[in-house]
Amino acid sequence: MKKKARGYYSKCEQFDYAGTHLLLELWGATNITSLEKVKEALIDSIDACGATLLEIKLRYFSPNHGISGIAIIKESHLTIHTWPEFGYVAIDIFVCGEVNPYKAIPVLKKAFKPKKMQLLELKRGILE
Amino acid sequence: MKKKARGYYSKCEQFDYAGTHLLLELWGATNITSLEKVKEALIDSIDACGATLLEIKLRYFSPNHGISGIAIIKESHLTIHTWPEFGYVAIDIFVCGEVNPYKAIPVLKKAFKPKKMQLLELKRGILE
Repeated sequence: MKKKARGYYSKCEQFDYAGTHLLLELWGATNITSLEKVKEALIDSIDACGATLLEIKLRYFSPNHGISGIAIIKESHLTIHTWPEFGYVAIDIFVCGEVNPYKAIPVLKKAFKPKKMQLLELKRGILE
Repeated sequence: MKKKARGYYSKCEQFDYAGTHLLLELWGATNITSLEKVKEALIDSIDACGATLLEIKLRYFSPNHGISGIAIIKESHLTIHTWPEFGYVAIDIFVCGEVNPYKAIPVLKKAFKPKKMQLLELKRGILE
């Protein structure tokens, strides 16, 4: 294994890996047709995790009033896509280093007030 | 269920859902310190799937020479993160509608020539 740059990969007790990826599904969510609210939720989530925002872009779609937002952070990315017609939001939080992606969850719950949330956690790039 | 906008969700024989999310892991990959090559691979992947690019942003990191790239497409997103020190690339392709994300795979294999590839497919937002 070549030299590793500190902070660009992750460690747990059992193995080293590239990063942690949370895939969130929100149902019965509110505030998901507002570009301003979605952007604020993304930025506040990044802050809550202690991550560093580098680029953020959002797009609004018609006729369903859905929003897509993506943020490059120093530690990988956050994405959000809303389907207002179903009250559904798909959020991805992919982080490396010491960043804790779970800290975004209270922010997202406060922003979108989902009736139900599902979560899948993946460890990406497990190193030998 | 409220009115659905055609093209903003997906269907299979058994259920309707928001979109298909492919999570790709490439190992032993080449060309992953070149912003130009990574950008070209993202754009060509989007074209191969028949998706529509709306925004694309890339960032270069030092000291590990890694690259992060994210693209908003009309049908959701593509992201790529490279860890040159491990020859590792994490790619996400999240699409809704009629777009076939698997059509990106030959493009990505040609661009990065990985020795090994792993793939996880998720159906996001399964509708009742």
